[in-house]
Amino acid sequence: MANICLQATGGGAYKFADLFKEKLSVSLDKEDEMECLVTGANFLLKAVHQEAFTYLDGQKEFAQIDPNDLYPYLLVNIGSGVSMIKVDGDGKFERVSGTSLGGGTFWGLGRLLTKCKNFDELLELSHQGNNRVIDMLVGDIYGGTDYAKIGLSATTIASSFGKAISDNKELVDYKPEDISRSLLRMISNNIGQISYLNALRFGLKRIFFAGFFIRGHAYTMDTISVAVNFWSKGEAEAMFLRHEGFLGALGAFMSYEKQCPDGLTVNKVPQRFPISVSSAGNKIYCSMNGKSNGNESIECTVYGT
Amino acid sequence: MANICLQATGGGAYKFADLFKEKLSVSLDKEDEMECLVTGANFLLKAVHQEAFTYLDGQKEFAQIDPNDLYPYLLVNIGSGVSMIKVDGDGKFERVSGTSLGGGTFWGLGRLLTKCKNFDELLELSHQGNNRVIDMLVGDIYGGTDYAKIGLSATTIASSFGKAISDNKELVDYKPEDISRSLLRMISNNIGQISYLNALRFGLKRIFFAGFFIRGHAYTMDTISVAVNFWSKGEAEAMFLRHEGFLGALGAFMSYEKQCPDGLTVNKVPQRFPISVSSAGNKIYCSMNGKSNGNESIECTVYGT
Repeated sequence: MANICLQATGGGAYKFADLFKEKLSVSLDKEDEMECLVTGANFLLKAVHQEAFTYLDGQKEFAQIDPNDLYPYLLVNIGSGVSMIKVDGDGKFERVSGTSLGGGTFWGLGRLLTKCKNFDELLELSHQGNNRVIDMLVGDIYGGTDYAKIGLSATTIASSFGKAISDNKELVDYKPEDISRSLLRMISNNIGQISYLNALRFGLKRIFFAGFFIRGHAYTMDTISVAVNFWSKGEAEAMFLRHEGFLGALGAFMSYEKQCPDGLTVNKVPQRFPISVSSAGNKIYCSMNGKSNGNESIECTVYGT
Repeated sequence: MANICLQATGGGAYKFADLFKEKLSVSLDKEDEMECLVTGANFLLKAVHQEAFTYLDGQKEFAQIDPNDLYPYLLVNIGSGVSMIKVDGDGKFERVSGTSLGGGTFWGLGRLLTKCKNFDELLELSHQGNNRVIDMLVGDIYGGTDYAKIGLSATTIASSFGKAISDNKELVDYKPEDISRSLLRMISNNIGQISYLNALRFGLKRIFFAGFFIRGHAYTMDTISVAVNFWSKGEAEAMFLRHEGFLGALGAFMSYEKQCPDGLTVNKVPQRFPISVSSAGNKIYCSMNGKSNGNESIECTVYGT
């Protein structure tokens, strides 16, 4: 078992390097996280037919993207926090922005407010929820009417969790479903807005959203899409990736090629399994071949040299 | 008591118009909220010496603003929600953006998480808090080190409330002080970021922050200032107004002038008290001559015609 080495990326590749070595006798060969994300995204967007899609009003629509007209684009990776990366080409990218209101905020606040036991349960709850119970809408402020003069409809959220300031209700009086829905809208809407403002700033026509926060969850994608549509006044569209959980792992995988330039290619090393390691809380979450295994223990086939 | 009329602005001027009429026999003469805010801000910035100031690291520094070089600027009004208004001159303005993460979010989430009884108590608590207990920092993700390659220090917040996802702690295990501090940083930082992105978008060199969320609270101003400084890489500065609670009321006051052009001026009608009425929850909050009276009952001298 000597000299077993695993290509790894994500914060956990740093944080848990000693643990991997001690418990599994595995050395983590740390690959830069942003670089892996970008490498993975570039590969998918160029190589996989119908990789990118839009999602609005429950309708998924695949986008035709000419590989020669892919750059520049904005890659928004929503993990615990959010990174916004301007991608100009293979290996050419810059983290231009981000926000600390990400998946960790949704889950962290959600746990404290609802006592849900895991992220997916919280996400699931939001399906049945109604955010209007807790969010203050424009109509709540203006006596049921729009503030038409400035283009705000009565149903626009004026203040997330703004109704919770009422003395009449305590935390136990709110349904977890409604809390989850309000949280999801707050976070998704905010990410959509900041992403759009950054795309605008750098003149990027496409915004791709990825990361564990999305997980193919319809309402999340819908809210992000609505946010981008709302803030851009219909001029920009949110796009999602079919393999949104695979980016880091795929990028780490492709880094073998860099290190063994004489003959190793993606096609030739299918038996090698890179991982993306994140470090939420005290747990290690591994994404292997793109499949996030959530609360499960680490399962990965290691690569020995 | 017939025909008593009061110039009023804010959402409550619409929502509570019937209540004012019924209980107090007072008609609310509704003035547009944005217009009042802008009129008030323009007046203060031009007429009052040392109205605007910067606040960083506990240092308040008054800004010299040439009244002839005031426009355009961004006015960020932080009430329950947040409005971002591009001001180009007297009566020339546009609400270009906003966010639903405002004072109502801080207070609403804060109430649910800490059981604080009012906004000021929650704000006060944040003084003694430490956000690092609940927020996930870059250093928490990268095993205590910076992510220097992309310019993120170990102490940067990677995920607001990101540590709360840990299974080891429940809501009762967190100190209200720490929760309040994390919330305040999350909201202030987010507002600072979105404001800066909008200032950049429209080429506005000055950003003024006002509204009840601030209330001259040092840590709030400091966080907003740090956020603007961080996101602009030192190229933009947050500014605050000495009379930040007065804008709407002052604007409503000045609207008398418009309605009585033959002789009534600001100087001639000091006995007339306009109000700014907001409608958070089931309470009416009145700002009279700029003094927000929080939970108190309505106290205002009305203007009879």
